[in-house]
Formats: sequence, structure tokens, C-alpha cells
Amino acid sequence: MTDFFKGIDAVKYEGPDSDSELCYRHYDANEIVMGKRMEDHLRFAVAYWHSFAWEGGDPFGGRTFDRPWFGSTMDKAKLKADVAFDMFKIIGQPYFCFHDADMRPEGDNFAESTRNLEEMVDYIGTKMEAAETKLLWGTANLFSHRRFMSGAATNPDPEVFAYSAATIKTCMDATLKLGGENYVLWGGREGYETLLNTDLKQERTQAGRMLQMAVDYKHKIGFKGAILIEPKPQEPTKHQYDYDVATVYGFLKEFGLENEVQMNIEQGHAILAGHSFEHELAMAAALGIFGSIDMNRNDYQSGWDTDQFPNNVPEIALAYYEVIKAGGFKTGGTNFDAKLRRQSLDPVDLIAGHVGAMDVCALGFKKAAALFEDGKLEQERNARYAGWNEPEAKKMLEGDHSLESIEEYVRGGDVNPEPRSGKQERLENLVNRFM
Amino acid sequence: MTDFFKGIDAVKYEGPDSDSELCYRHYDANEIVMGKRMEDHLRFAVAYWHSFAWEGGDPFGGRTFDRPWFGSTMDKAKLKADVAFDMFKIIGQPYFCFHDADMRPEGDNFAESTRNLEEMVDYIGTKMEAAETKLLWGTANLFSHRRFMSGAATNPDPEVFAYSAATIKTCMDATLKLGGENYVLWGGREGYETLLNTDLKQERTQAGRMLQMAVDYKHKIGFKGAILIEPKPQEPTKHQYDYDVATVYGFLKEFGLENEVQMNIEQGHAILAGHSFEHELAMAAALGIFGSIDMNRNDYQSGWDTDQFPNNVPEIALAYYEVIKAGGFKTGGTNFDAKLRRQSLDPVDLIAGHVGAMDVCALGFKKAAALFEDGKLEQERNARYAGWNEPEAKKMLEGDHSLESIEEYVRGGDVNPEPRSGKQERLENLVNRFM
Amino acid sequence: MTDFFKGIDAVKYEGPDSDSELCYRHYDANEIVMGKRMEDHLRFAVAYWHSFAWEGGDPFGGRTFDRPWFGSTMDKAKLKADVAFDMFKIIGQPYFCFHDADMRPEGDNFAESTRNLEEMVDYIGTKMEAAETKLLWGTANLFSHRRFMSGAATNPDPEVFAYSAATIKTCMDATLKLGGENYVLWGGREGYETLLNTDLKQERTQAGRMLQMAVDYKHKIGFKGAILIEPKPQEPTKHQYDYDVATVYGFLKEFGLENEVQMNIEQGHAILAGHSFEHELAMAAALGIFGSIDMNRNDYQSGWDTDQFPNNVPEIALAYYEVIKAGGFKTGGTNFDAKLRRQSLDPVDLIAGHVGAMDVCALGFKKAAALFEDGKLEQERNARYAGWNEPEAKKMLEGDHSLESIEEYVRGGDVNPEPRSGKQERLENLVNRFM
Amino acid sequence: MTDFFKGIDAVKYEGPDSDSELCYRHYDANEIVMGKRMEDHLRFAVAYWHSFAWEGGDPFGGRTFDRPWFGSTMDKAKLKADVAFDMFKIIGQPYFCFHDADMRPEGDNFAESTRNLEEMVDYIGTKMEAAETKLLWGTANLFSHRRFMSGAATNPDPEVFAYSAATIKTCMDATLKLGGENYVLWGGREGYETLLNTDLKQERTQAGRMLQMAVDYKHKIGFKGAILIEPKPQEPTKHQYDYDVATVYGFLKEFGLENEVQMNIEQGHAILAGHSFEHELAMAAALGIFGSIDMNRNDYQSGWDTDQFPNNVPEIALAYYEVIKAGGFKTGGTNFDAKLRRQSLDPVDLIAGHVGAMDVCALGFKKAAALFEDGKLEQERNARYAGWNEPEAKKMLEGDHSLESIEEYVRGGDVNPEPRSGKQERLENLVNRFM
Ligand SMILES: [Co+2]
Ligand SMILES: [Co+2]
Ligand SMILES: [Co+2]
Ligand SMILES: [Co+2]
Ligand SMILES: [Co+2]
Ligand SMILES: [Co+2]
Ligand SMILES: [Co+2]
Ligand SMILES: [Co+2]
Repeated sequence: MTDFFKGIDAVKYEGPDSDSELCYRHYDANEIVMGKRMEDHLRFAVAYWHSFAWEGGDPFGGRTFDRPWFGSTMDKAKLKADVAFDMFKIIGQPYFCFHDADMRPEGDNFAESTRNLEEMVDYIGTKMEAAETKLLWGTANLFSHRRFMSGAATNPDPEVFAYSAATIKTCMDATLKLGGENYVLWGGREGYETLLNTDLKQERTQAGRMLQMAVDYKHKIGFKGAILIEPKPQEPTKHQYDYDVATVYGFLKEFGLENEVQMNIEQGHAILAGHSFEHELAMAAALGIFGSIDMNRNDYQSGWDTDQFPNNVPEIALAYYEVIKAGGFKTGGTNFDAKLRRQSLDPVDLIAGHVGAMDVCALGFKKAAALFEDGKLEQERNARYAGWNEPEAKKMLEGDHSLESIEEYVRGGDVNPEPRSGKQERLENLVNRFM
Repeated sequence: MTDFFKGIDAVKYEGPDSDSELCYRHYDANEIVMGKRMEDHLRFAVAYWHSFAWEGGDPFGGRTFDRPWFGSTMDKAKLKADVAFDMFKIIGQPYFCFHDADMRPEGDNFAESTRNLEEMVDYIGTKMEAAETKLLWGTANLFSHRRFMSGAATNPDPEVFAYSAATIKTCMDATLKLGGENYVLWGGREGYETLLNTDLKQERTQAGRMLQMAVDYKHKIGFKGAILIEPKPQEPTKHQYDYDVATVYGFLKEFGLENEVQMNIEQGHAILAGHSFEHELAMAAALGIFGSIDMNRNDYQSGWDTDQFPNNVPEIALAYYEVIKAGGFKTGGTNFDAKLRRQSLDPVDLIAGHVGAMDVCALGFKKAAALFEDGKLEQERNARYAGWNEPEAKKMLEGDHSLESIEEYVRGGDVNPEPRSGKQERLENLVNRFM
Repeated sequence: MTDFFKGIDAVKYEGPDSDSELCYRHYDANEIVMGKRMEDHLRFAVAYWHSFAWEGGDPFGGRTFDRPWFGSTMDKAKLKADVAFDMFKIIGQPYFCFHDADMRPEGDNFAESTRNLEEMVDYIGTKMEAAETKLLWGTANLFSHRRFMSGAATNPDPEVFAYSAATIKTCMDATLKLGGENYVLWGGREGYETLLNTDLKQERTQAGRMLQMAVDYKHKIGFKGAILIEPKPQEPTKHQYDYDVATVYGFLKEFGLENEVQMNIEQGHAILAGHSFEHELAMAAALGIFGSIDMNRNDYQSGWDTDQFPNNVPEIALAYYEVIKAGGFKTGGTNFDAKLRRQSLDPVDLIAGHVGAMDVCALGFKKAAALFEDGKLEQERNARYAGWNEPEAKKMLEGDHSLESIEEYVRGGDVNPEPRSGKQERLENLVNRFM
Repeated sequence: MTDFFKGIDAVKYEGPDSDSELCYRHYDANEIVMGKRMEDHLRFAVAYWHSFAWEGGDPFGGRTFDRPWFGSTMDKAKLKADVAFDMFKIIGQPYFCFHDADMRPEGDNFAESTRNLEEMVDYIGTKMEAAETKLLWGTANLFSHRRFMSGAATNPDPEVFAYSAATIKTCMDATLKLGGENYVLWGGREGYETLLNTDLKQERTQAGRMLQMAVDYKHKIGFKGAILIEPKPQEPTKHQYDYDVATVYGFLKEFGLENEVQMNIEQGHAILAGHSFEHELAMAAALGIFGSIDMNRNDYQSGWDTDQFPNNVPEIALAYYEVIKAGGFKTGGTNFDAKLRRQSLDPVDLIAGHVGAMDVCALGFKKAAALFEDGKLEQERNARYAGWNEPEAKKMLEGDHSLESIEEYVRGGDVNPEPRSGKQERLENLVNRFM
């Protein structure tokens, strides 16, 4: 152990009545819910970038944190990894996620950056053997360096496309080597600042080609995890091409990749796109492309991506309800893509942020499970659509009717449907019985 | 002529220096721009609903207008049509658009509503013979009546689906009979108020089926116009399924209808979805589904659909620039889906709203045309992507490369691309030279 | 009893484990919390307008509800009152609130409208004698009728100002007669649609004058309750003058009325103004003008005033925490300015909406009370500002220092303050222990 | 001259038909409009921070610009100043604005930072003697350094308050020395991230005290310029205390400073607060606190402060129309608080951004002046309120009436006002004749 978290013991489940500040009141990894351990349901992951690489800056101010591992040498990178694994141990987090740029210093060129990455992968691989923390997913940071300022896959300069492709390869290799269960693509710079200098069709073609190559490479190297795209509507760019789940679905359909790629859905990005988190989850499930979640929360009054730790249990429960309805996580999990507020300077803040988040997620999940097992909500939903089980209705839906034949049916039967209550408040009350 | 617009003469082109309140300063229907008459470029249409059916109500107050044709008899409906055609003549508008519910009183049942519609179609057809105004598009109002409160095509009750299908048929028939050049679908209630009572997958299937039937019926009756979907993200519902262009594209791809259906894009709906108007136009063009526009403006500080008349020439110019780049309107046109403010009580306000809108559109179009004919902006755009014409770049894009082979190329050539200016301000300045 | 709610019994407290749909699980009127009955803490009120006058319309559709009292006769108005009091009895609501226009039919002129109001006040007064429901507040509807389309107090037409003043008088009289505990002003049309036709200074002067007259009249007639202003930023107008708490405070200060008028704060209006509910509550308390609340919820993804029943317990708890910190309600209370969704057609929906809302409020209040009684959160807050108790700090704050003398102090002492953690996540965790 | 702008000549007025990229088409400093030189109307200023100190970073990426003066030595600071004055000369900008932190390197402590500042003030003062550029305003950067992370005047730590006070003194001294015409306060960190750790009343008191001391010091040192507050609703904080003009007005009234302090209004901040730019300008004028403007533009689809160069002439014209109505600038001016997009890497981009902005402002101002001189819009506005000139109306407004006496008047006269058209579309058309 480094001494960064000195004085902070491993966090334990102590139950709802505990008076400890740092304990789990609701998250008991081994508790069985719906026939499975909580840890196996939730599959929590720490985000390497927010917790260890982010320095506390914002658009109006620089670094506030003061971490011994800040710097750009391999030694600092290894110290950072040491502290990260200290934290994984303290909080008992089963997974982590990373970008290449989080864990290795940038080199002077591609070859050096790759060597640095490979060395860090070896270092971390060794640490993982001794730890109980696995890799939920890896990804490439194709947005921070100035070379990506005009896009990675969608850059007007084919050299940047090439650099990006090469980087994705090395990150997929790293993910495979560390036993990662998914590989994620987030298009931070895949969008535009102004339409005036942008060729949407050209950039779309480039993005489709890059995705196809990533899918091909996955199969080539025998990577068994899922390829995930993480939608986000804007920020840093004015418009990002992977705006939301429905937009990405259209993109996948265009390139015939809808069976190869799934969604990694983030609460904050859903909000920025004008959707609730549960909407994006339900939409992905309806389209057959649900994969994993980036759990965080966006401030409802802020117009940018605040990436805060989640803390509203009923909202979390509604999100997990959609996860449960979608069959739960397969390769996916609950990645905390959440960062401390920049005023939260102390090591204990970093632990507290994760512990609180894991606890509210555990409680939210249990409430969702209870609601699901109760079954009344699904009964109500099914009853609302029961008319579609009637033969005439089935005929309409399955294609044995035309506008003309239906018009005859309406005229003939003097069809004049009376509206029926949507029961929204009653269903909200029903849900609240479990909250 | 009725006496509703008494004292208001036909509005003429008088040039930019005219001092008349009601004249065209920029819209000369016969002016030739880019080799075509302005009228044939712009294809202006009046929206029957806002101008003649809307009563001035809002969520906090009722009818403010006091029109002699308000009421629900056939006589009133005919008076309404008379006044509408008076206005078409005064402003010299070449097209109009309608919903069934705008022009006929609701009957006690489907058969009576249809009879009312048919009688009004005959009445209006006769008026059209004597007038120079044609029908840009027709559509069915499947959102105002309480039977549609939970959706039309996506209603949980198959009887409402049936009623909606039958109504679409009668409206397509009416559109064909009146020589309409397009048929529009807007899903005002095709969405949800709460996910708790909603089955997204079921409703999506219903919507796909309905659209397929409409396309089939179009071919059956030999309707030559386009089927258009008008995206809108929300309002009246919390979430609408035809959220934006990219979302509808995914829906069309799922049901294999992307070559059968085009987009009718409204400025206000683009804004509500978090996009600029020109974004939606450029996106539709990039996806090959651009059709027509609903020209209006949304207040940038209001979170609902304000449907105001357009009045910002540079914004309009950027929108028409995308229309021009997309090849201009084929069957589509510029429909003013715009209503008076509810305090604008006077008949002259209705004329002034349209005259001002036509004039700013004409001016915006001419500025867009000048920018396009100048060609520098497109040269700049093309230059930015010129690298993709190089052989190695083409190879990457056309599939002759893999992540691995590109990585070799990057390593081998020590590819280390230097960023190049995106020139946004210079391009904005270039555009402003034409504004 | 009318038979509108036939088959629905009085709703009772049954505790958290009850399986009844319509019962209180958390709201026991007589439960003692912080030394007072829950009913006396929460002071729940039903809003006459949403529950009995609203017909289910929205900007894209008309009436969905089918109530036997819809219509504009005195008989209908009395039936409406009968049903209202049936509901008050069923849910055991201690208060209601009303606008004149909710309870009386509009007359042909001021005198007739006033006679109608007076007759209904007598009718309702008699009902109140037999019931346990009191009047939390009355108000004048100065926004629905077309005469108010350009404002009431701020109308460019002084006749409308006069009509509004006279109406406020009659509504204050009615409120006094019914024993109302507050009188509310909400400026639905006190704003503008376009700056082009608006004289802000003139309209502000008019508003100030009207408010002064209302305050004067209150004292004249011996009304002991509070005068409350309800801020709202926009909708129906583009901009409303009572934008938010801070804006209204400036207005009160300008006219010297900050000790005469308090705030009625609505969750949905706070959200529309870009604030959290608790922000507006805390701000009003800090400025000494907190009065009462309109409890509801706004959909976070909708840009208009959705006025839904509240249902998120942690959010409600944070709001009541501010109420408790402000000393609790004096004349104010918890008015449900909330309406059913327009698809919620059934009488039971109306009961369920209120019962669910009262229950989540009761639970939220109890959680807030527990957090407050625990005291740790306030200790943390106070500790953060403890430095201001030091003599030098006090001197700075109390005016015994100038920029120059402080500069000397900084130079002399080489003041170089080290930032301290803001502990946000730890405080959020602390709060969540009570949620 | 340094060689940073090598090859770029001084930008000249060449008239609307010029084909040069870098010229003024509309801004002729010496053109007389409304009896005054354009330069004296517009009083353009360059913002030192965006143009010279900002490095091109955003929340997802670091520095993109590559400037020879980046670094933290005095030599670099002087090179930066040299380049800045090169640019002032090239574009013929009459003014600039600065924060202390823009022009001097941060020292190890207050004394060193102050010495650095003083040295730079001398250096720049000498440059100003040889140049034609004056100082519009100075200000203190109390938000970038980590010591200010929890606020400056409103910091819970009184030592930070002291450090801030001392810094404001040194910046006021610097502003005075350089002949600045205003001193600005922008509360970048004067707000909160979470209410949970915040005492609003305490922080408000601190802010009031600091402002009082700044006003006192201004008088003490004989600074003749205006003290300006620049409202902004949020970003970097969740909530900022100087939310908008109306909010700041309430704050000034509370501390009795409304005659001592004026507003510096930024377009982007107006938008973020839910207002149009012209609203904030008109509101400040109505409240008697209009001072100066930060001219830029916020992307309407982005929820953060994009600080782009202005480019929409009709919007700019509406803003200057309010400035003209308010009597034009006295000590204030048009500061371009605008930064290049981070992809705009080239020196010429920096020149082009300013030249384009000055040109659209000049054109917008001339259109506003023409509209104002025409007078019809003001005639229409005045006519709308003409009723208030009648004796009975005056009586109501001036306090000779009460609710009771007005009620008698309404009853007696059977006052039943008929609504009159607000003419919005006609007024918009009128405005567009000048655009
Ligand atoms: Co994420
Ligand atoms: Co995020
Ligand atoms: Co439309
Ligand atoms: Co619309
Ligand atoms: Co309210
Ligand atoms: Co409301
Ligand atoms: Co600014
Ligand atoms: Co700004």
C-alpha cells in the first residue's frame, strides 16, 4: 500500500443502522437478489480517468488537486496505478475501466506512446494477478491531444484517421491482454464545431469505416467481449454524431453493424440529449442493442456534462428496472463515470464518492428488483396492450390489412373508440410503494 | 371576396425602397435566380390550421381571436375556405397545406366526418379551379380529438389504430383529389407521457406497420408525390418517436422504408431537439431523405413550440443554403407552419405575418444563392478534405486496410499529424459578406 | 355526497405495509414530528383549478375529461363545489385554494361576475361550516380571459388595469370572508411577448402601484394573512416580471414592500427559471421573504410548466429541509398546484394523484426532520464558516476595514490561504443516510 | 513589431464591395452617425484574456494554440504585451480590457504577484503612450487560481476574502494608473456548487461588504470611471449570485449601492440566464443601471458559455437599439469578450475574428441608428400606452386611487375593455425594413 489513503480501512458492509461514515449500508456484495449475488448483478467499475487522471480543472480554473502522481513520467504512472489498486482494494470494487492516456504518459510519437502503454499494461496486469479487480472495459482517448482537435475517425486529415486507427488497435490489444470484458468507443471529437467547414456525409463514411475495422479486428484477435458505443449529444463539440441511442441505431443500421455493436449509456449524456436515463435504456433494449452503463448524474440545471456521483435512489431504481427488464448485464456493468467536485480535495473524498455511489446503486437495484418481482407494474403495462392479442388486431399488425380494408372495417363496425385512462399517477404510486 | 380583409389590396412587389407597409420588398415571384423563378424555388405555402383554425388559445387562456367562421357547421367551414382563398389571392401564395380537421367539422362518427371532408374537398376543389393556389400537401390531424390522446398509430388500443388508418386513407384520397404534391405524417401523439405504461417495442412495431400501409396505399392509388415525415422531439408528449432526422432515419432503416419516405423539417422542431435548423437540413441531405420544410421560428428562450413567423435573414439564408446544396425542392416547398401571436387580433396582422415572412425568405434565399454561386465556401470545404483524394487515404476508406495494416503504416511512416486551422471565423466572415 | 366518487371510501392511514391502493402509508395527520402534528406542519391544500376546472386540454388537443360539472351555469358551479368537498372529505385534506374563475361562471360584465362570485362564496362558506377543510389562499385569475391577453396590472390599457384592480378587491374580499390565511398574486400575463411593443419601465411602475394598493387594502380590511407573490419566469409569456425569488426581491425593494410581501414558491417555476426548488426556498429564507409553497414537479426534460404531482422523495425532503430551516410554515402551507395527466380520465385517478402526493410529501418531510434533528449537516455547514467568528474576520465584515487596510494585512501577514475540501460527496452521503 | 502577425497589414475601411479578406466593409471609424464618429459610438475593446492568455483548452482537451509567449516568466509576459499591441495597431482597436492574471505571471505570494503586476503596468503604460489604444476597463481574476475555488468575496475562509480584497485594490490601482474608464467585477466563483455546504445569507453579506469597500476605494483614490458588475447565472459554479440584471439590482438595492454600480452585460450570459441580450439591456436601462457590454455570442444549442465572436447582424442591431435608447455608452463600450474556436490556430484567425466582429457590429449599429432615427417604432410603442396620459389613468398610477375607488369606477362605468392587437408581426416587419 502507498500512504495516499493512510488511515482509511477497507470499507465493509455494516447494514443500514451503522453509524460509520465509510461503510456500506446497502451494498453487500454477497447478498442474493433475484437468485444472484449483488456483485454479479451490479458489476461496479471505477473510472481510472476521473479518479486518477483528472486534476480538478474547469473552463475557468486550473488544477485544484494535489496528487503525488501528477506528472508525465513512467514512475508517476506506476505510482498512480499503485494508488488506484489501493483504492480498488479499499472499496472492494470488482472492476475498473481505462483509456490509454489515463495510464501511460504520452510519448513523442506513436511508437513511444505505444511502448509506454505496453509497459503499463504489463505493470497493471501483474497488479491484477494479486488483486480481485478485473477490467470491465478499455478504450482509446482520441480527444485530449491537440492532434484530435478536429476529430479522430472523422478528421478531415486522413493521417489523423490513420493515427486513430492505429491507436484503437493498440487499445484493443491492451484490453484483450488485461482480460477486458468490453471495448468502448466514445466519439468525443467525432462531431463538428461549425457546419460551414464540415462534410457530414464524408465524415459519416469515415466513422462507419473505422467502426467496421474495429469489429473486424475484434473477430480477428478473438476478443469475446462486446464492442460498445457511448452516445453523447454534444460537448466538447457543438454536435456529436453519436447523439443518442436512436441516432446511433440509425448509424449502425446504415453500416449493417446493429448486431455487432451495443450501447454504453451514460446518465449525464442522456440528460444532455433531452432524454431521461431510463428512456435511453429502454430504447436500447427495444432496439436490441443494450450493453452497459456509465452511472453518474448530471446536474439538472447545468447545460454541460457534470459527471457527478449518482445520489437519487428512486431515479437509480427506475434505471436499473430497465436493466433488469433487458435481462441484466451480460458483459456490461455499472461504470462510475463520475468525478469528484473540484473542491473535494481530500483522499477521503475520493473514497466517500465511490462508497456513497455504490450504496445508492445497491439500494436502487434492490428496489427495482422488488418492483420487478412484484410483477404488478408489468401486469398493468401488458393489460394496456391486451387488445393487440385479438385476431383482428393481430391481422392489422401482421400485414393482412391495408388502409382500404381497415377503412371498410371502421365504417362497417362504426368503430368509435372511447379513450381509457393511462393511469399515470396510479402507476407512479405503485412504483413509490417500492421506493 | 368576403369582407374579412376589406380594404386590403393584393400585395405587390414594390422593391426595397417602397414605403408601403404591405408590399414585397424582396419577393418578386418572377425574378430569375440561379436560372429559375423565385416562386418556383421557394414554393411558399400557407398553413390552413394556424391561419384559419387556431383560435388564439394557450395553456393559460382561451380564444382571443374573433373570427366570423368559428363554429362547427358546414356553412362556417365554407366561409373559412372563402376567407382562406381571399388571403391566398391577396398575398399571391402559390400553395396551401391542410389537415382534415382544419377544413371540415368533426362528425359524430367516422362516416360523417368523412362525408364532411369530402364535401369540403369538393368545395375547395372548385375554388382551386378559379384560383392560382395549389396544394403543397395534405395530412391527417390525429392528435386533437380526445380519441387520440394516447396515440394514433401507436395507441395501445387497436381500435384507435384502425380509426387512424382509415383516416389516413381518407386524407390521402383528399390530397390526391386536390392535386397535392406531398402527403405528410406528423406524430403529435406518437410518443409517451410516461415510460411506466409504455411498451416501446410494441409501439414502434405499430408505427412501422402504419407507415408501410401508407406507402403501399400511395403506390396503389398512383399518388406521385412524396410521403413526408415531420420530426419533432416532444410537445405535446414527453417524448415523440420521430425525435429528429437521425432518429427517423433509424426508424426508416429498420422498416426498409428509407427510399420511400422523406423529411419535412421544421425550424422550431429542430431547435427543440437541440439542433440548428441547418443541421437538420444538412443531415437529411447527407442521409438522402431531404424533402420539404416547415418554415417558422422558435423563440430561443422558450422551451415549447412557438411557431412564429421567421424574421432573421442570416439564419434563413443558412437554411436555404442547405436546401440549395441538397438540389433545391423537388415536390417539397416552404410551408409557413407559423401562427400569429395571440395578441395579433386584426385581419391585417394575418396578412402582415405572411408578407413579412415571404419577404425575409426571399431575401435569405437570394443571399444563399449568391453565396452558393460565389463558390468560395464550397472550395474551402473541399480543400479541407482534399487529403482523402490521395491513394493511401482512399485505400483506408474503401476497405483495403485493417487496423493492423494501418498501424504498420503509422509506425513505418512515423505518422504524427500536425493540426490545421478549422478557419471558423474566416468562414463566418466569408458568409457575412453575402448577408 | 354526489356520486362522482362512488365506491371510493375515505382514505386512511394504514402504515407502510398496507396493501391497499388508496391509503396513506406515511401520512398520519396526527403523528407528532418535531413536537407538532404532521397536518400542522404540512398544511396540505388542494388546488381547485387543476382538480376541478381544468378540462384536460393542451396546445395540441382539447378537453379529454368528461365531468358532469363542466359548463358555465351556477348550477354546474355548485355541483363542482359539491364534488370538490366530497374529495376534500375523502382525502382528509385540510385546505384548498382557489381563483375566482375556478368557482364562478364568468358573467357578461364585472358586476355579474362579482355577483356570481359572491353567491359561490356564500355557497362554499356554508359547505365549509360542515366540513373540516379551510382556505389556505385565494387569488384572482387575471390571465385566462382575453381581456388580459396583454397583461392585467401591466396592461398598456389603463381600463384593464382598472378591471384588474377591481377584481383583486373582490377576490381579497372573498378570501377574507372564507377565512383564507393568505392572498396570492401570480402574474400570468404580467410580462411581454416582444420587447418591440413593450415599455418595461412603465409596466414596472404599474405593477408596483397595483401591489401597493393590494397591500393597502389588506390593512384597510384587517386581513391578517400574508400577501404572497408566486414567481414564474415565463409561460404563458416570453418573459414574466416575477421571474424568480431574487428578481421579485429587487422589485419589492424598489417599491419598499419587502416587509409586506412574501413568496409562494413553486417547484416547477423554480426549474423553469434554471434553479432547483431548494435554491428558491433557501434564497427566499435568506432574504426574509419565505411564505408558502406550490408543491408539484416539472418534468426535467420538458421546457414548459408540466405541473405534475410530486413523486421523488429525496427531492421533496431537500425542499422541506429548507422549509424547516426557515422556521416552517406560518400562514403558508403545501398547496398541490398539480394536475392529472390528461390521459388520467377516471375519478380514482384524481384521488390517487393527491393521495400519492401527500404520502411522498409526508415521507419527505419526516426524512427532512430527521436530518435536521440529527444536526450533523448544520454542524458541518457552520464549521465551514467558523473562521468568520475570529476578530480580524469580524472586523472585515463589519466595516472596520478598507481595501487598503486589508491589503496591508495581507502583505504584512503574507496571507496565502490554502484551499480546504468542500466535502460535497461526504455531505451528500450524510444526507442519503436519512433518505 | 514582433513577427507574430508577419505579412498582415493594418486593416482599413474599404467599403462593402471590397474583395479583400481582411478589411472593414462597414466599420469606418470616422463615419458620422447620429452626429458622432462611429469609433466614439462603439468604443470597441479587445479582451486580453481570450486573445492572448487562453490556450485553446476545453474540458476534454488541453492547449491547441502554440504561441511564443506561453510560459510564466516576465519576458514572456512582455512578449505577450508586444504582440497584443501589434494586434491593436493592425485592427485599429481603440480600447482593450484586462485581468491582472492575463498580463502578469503569478508570483509565489501576494507581494510577488503585485510586483509582477506593477512592472507589467509600467511596461504597458509605456506602450500605451506610443499607441492609440486606451484601457476600457480593468478587473481582477479571482477565479482561476485554486485559492479561489470556493469563492473570492464569498469564500467561507476569511483569509481568501482578505486576499481578494487586497487583489481588487491592486487591480483598481492598475486600472487608475493606465487611465481605465471603468472597473469591472465578475463573480466567477461567487456562487455555490451545492447548497448543502453553503450559507447564502452569510455569503451575500460578504459580497455586499466587498462591493461597498470597492466603491469606497474608488472614491478615495478619485477614480472617475464606473464600477461595473457583470452578471452571469452559472458556469463555472452551479449557481452564481450575480445571476442576471434583475438579480443584481435586488442585491444593489439591499446594500444601497444602486446609484454607485452599473451593469456590464454579456450576450452569452444573458442567453444562459434564459434571456435575450436585448432584454438584459432594456432591463438595465429601465432600472437605471446600464453601463457597458461584453459583445459576443453564445451558441443557442450549447448549454455553456461559448464566447464566440458575434456574427448575426439583426440580433446585434436589436442590442444596439437598446443601447441607443439608453443614451449610448458613457464610460462603457463594446468589449469583445470572445475567443477563437480552439481549432482556429493561425495568427490570421485572431485578426479575422476581430475584424469580422467589428464589421458586423458597425453594420448592426448603423441599422439600429436608422431604425431609431426613423422613429416609427417608438411612435408605435408610445401609442400603445397613450391611455396612461388620460387624467383618470394618471390618478390610478400616481396613487390617488385605491382598490375600492377603482372598483367603484369599474362598476359605475361598466368598464369592459376590449383587447387591442399587439401588432407584433407588423412591428417585426417594420424592424426588418432596416435590417
Ligand atoms: Co461516460
Ligand atoms: Co459524461
Ligand atoms: Co410543422
Ligand atoms: Co411547430
Ligand atoms: Co403555482
Ligand atoms: Co406551474
Ligand atoms: Co464577459
Ligand atoms: Co462569457
